[in-house]
Amino acid sequence: MRCEVVAIGTELLLGQIVDTNSSWIGERLALIGIDSHFQTKVGDNAQRMEFCINQALERSDAVICCGGLGPTQDDITREAIASVMGVELRRDPVVEQRIVDLFKARGRVMTENNRRQADIPEGGRPIEQMPGTAPGLVCPVGDKVIYALPGVPYEMREMMEGTVLPDLMKRSGGAAVIRSRVLRTWGQSESGLAEILADRIEALDGIGNPTLAFQASGADGLKVRITAKAADEEAAAAMLAEEEALVRSLLGDVIFGVDEETMESVVLAALRATGRTLAAAEGFTGGLVAARLTRLDPEMETFVGGRLGPWGGAEDSAATGEARAAEAANRAREDFGASIGIAAIGREPGEEVPPGLARMAVAAGGNSATHSVALPGDRTQAREYAVIHLLSFVRRTLLA
Amino acid sequence: MRCEVVAIGTELLLGQIVDTNSSWIGERLALIGIDSHFQTKVGDNAQRMEFCINQALERSDAVICCGGLGPTQDDITREAIASVMGVELRRDPVVEQRIVDLFKARGRVMTENNRRQADIPEGGRPIEQMPGTAPGLVCPVGDKVIYALPGVPYEMREMMEGTVLPDLMKRSGGAAVIRSRVLRTWGQSESGLAEILADRIEALDGIGNPTLAFQASGADGLKVRITAKAADEEAAAAMLAEEEALVRSLLGDVIFGVDEETMESVVLAALRATGRTLAAAEGFTGGLVAARLTRLDPEMETFVGGRLGPWGGAEDSAATGEARAAEAANRAREDFGASIGIAAIGREPGEEVPPGLARMAVAAGGNSATHSVALPGDRTQAREYAVIHLLSFVRRTLLA
Repeated sequence: MRCEVVAIGTELLLGQIVDTNSSWIGERLALIGIDSHFQTKVGDNAQRMEFCINQALERSDAVICCGGLGPTQDDITREAIASVMGVELRRDPVVEQRIVDLFKARGRVMTENNRRQADIPEGGRPIEQMPGTAPGLVCPVGDKVIYALPGVPYEMREMMEGTVLPDLMKRSGGAAVIRSRVLRTWGQSESGLAEILADRIEALDGIGNPTLAFQASGADGLKVRITAKAADEEAAAAMLAEEEALVRSLLGDVIFGVDEETMESVVLAALRATGRTLAAAEGFTGGLVAARLTRLDPEMETFVGGRLGPWGGAEDSAATGEARAAEAANRAREDFGASIGIAAIGREPGEEVPPGLARMAVAAGGNSATHSVALPGDRTQAREYAVIHLLSFVRRTLLA
Repeated sequence: MRCEVVAIGTELLLGQIVDTNSSWIGERLALIGIDSHFQTKVGDNAQRMEFCINQALERSDAVICCGGLGPTQDDITREAIASVMGVELRRDPVVEQRIVDLFKARGRVMTENNRRQADIPEGGRPIEQMPGTAPGLVCPVGDKVIYALPGVPYEMREMMEGTVLPDLMKRSGGAAVIRSRVLRTWGQSESGLAEILADRIEALDGIGNPTLAFQASGADGLKVRITAKAADEEAAAAMLAEEEALVRSLLGDVIFGVDEETMESVVLAALRATGRTLAAAEGFTGGLVAARLTRLDPEMETFVGGRLGPWGGAEDSAATGEARAAEAANRAREDFGASIGIAAIGREPGEEVPPGLARMAVAAGGNSATHSVALPGDRTQAREYAVIHLLSFVRRTLLA
């Protein structure tokens, strides 16, 4: 089965907005085994829009139009689809009432134009999910289908997950539900993971379901995505759980999180669960560790403080190398009265080591653990990698 | 004149890479007045690639193919273009030698596949700029043209600026060179800028050259882009300089930088120029100010230190509100022996003010200046905006 994406909006062609929607949709389609051979961007022009939708419909089984469902005169995706279908638009009173209610609830003034958003091509139906004011559409054309989704990413995603992907799966005659889970790893290269999982991947290739896929995410680590197709939610969940257990038994604590979890969210959660607090001395990372942690802990209840200076606040120390990192971590801990202090500092002045050398320490109670890592890339890239290295070091120390 | 973009690569369709190249190219084309009605993404498949290039060539005067110029067997853009042109590929000995030399200079092993990158469709020519190992192509087809550029963004951009845009301008019968300059502003809304510049924009609309355009860039401020078309570099430079002077006389010090300058680069440069140093207390911004400054000053020579804690290191102070921010700024200055201390702290516990309220201070010598700003959006967004607010406050204080 083939599905094309037509992204609609002159602002996309002008480069005022980068079209991340098509990429996201393409990834999701691939996960359920649907081919997407072409993706097109077209402006807010009726003739060209119809041309693209028609062409996509000719060469594929399904077309996802994204954008042009707003209330302004530029928003003509509804009209273009009706024209391709050779039908009229009809105002849907139920959808119209939902829009009226939405505006009322938000205390916003509704214009006559907003009512246009309730116009639906004859034979089409609105998508149930409606996180914004723009209703999405499912418009069958013979045994093919055109979907229309808003360009606002979170609205588009909710409708994709809730309606389009399940509908496509039903149409492709495949499983009723498809679910995936991402296991996030740090500490193994992609080839290392592939080697460890090689037998399992080969076995799954034979079965075809579930599937395992890797995705490199730079300084966020490597993702292992398990995708399961099943008859119902329960069966999919069971399949994911079983496969996750198997992968975990092979990879061990290289896996630091699941789905939307990040190294910082996992570290903060572990600290909160045990009532501990953290302070950081960032000579090498220059505030990046703090910036990540305070994003999730803006009131600084768990990450209680940080100190930034070339030596992470250990400028007067006679120690060198990792010992200085340990001192910096201990001082951060004491300064802010935290349970745990951490530090990442760079090379000493005049020291003949690569600029990407970071010395790290985790200090708790009277003890400290240290290690060094030579990070590749320029200083900017090395800093990014140092953040997850340091947080991973904390995680392992917390778990120990 | 019309130009389409065909972005090539299965990884684009699968969403493994977001196609930012087409957006960037679309923006640049718009700036020189060339219409781009369609942009297409297609995978590494010869037949479909040729279909897209052919279609684009039928409905437009120029086609920019982006991607598929690498050395692997997947990289078949050269072959696809030759097929569309109905010609053979010929190995270009000059380009081949450049590739050989490049590998030698980098001490890397060259494979036979890399030589394929020197294959050029008959009638085409290599693009002079070659920042990587992939040569770009200019391939005339009748009075139309196909360009081929690598998918690596910086390589693509260098070839666009150096060859494709000038060639397109020559073909469109327009000016010989087109140059633009971005004036970066902070402290005025888009409508405010539009109002101040209204008369000038109206006057320029009549003349048609140079042009002024706004671009909102969120927490990076608003950009005013001046674009000038002229017979030669000198004339373009003169036109830009004249227009910049005029815009500056209207906007004053709302303009903080030019082109690639950022608020942090401007502040660091001003500090360096006067031999001063900076330290920060980041209660509200949680390390974001430090992260931005240390990116440009990784050895922390000018930005010498920072302290992060809910109150920016003034936890024991009896002062409240802006006075506490001033204390935090002064302590940061003293702690790190800096010329200037800055602080941004949030609301007091239990205080009945919006969560986006940030109190800021700049302290130097015995003096300090403070102000408060109520930032919109959620805490994450408010933090981003607080960074540029605080740096702008420093800039104005440094300049005073």
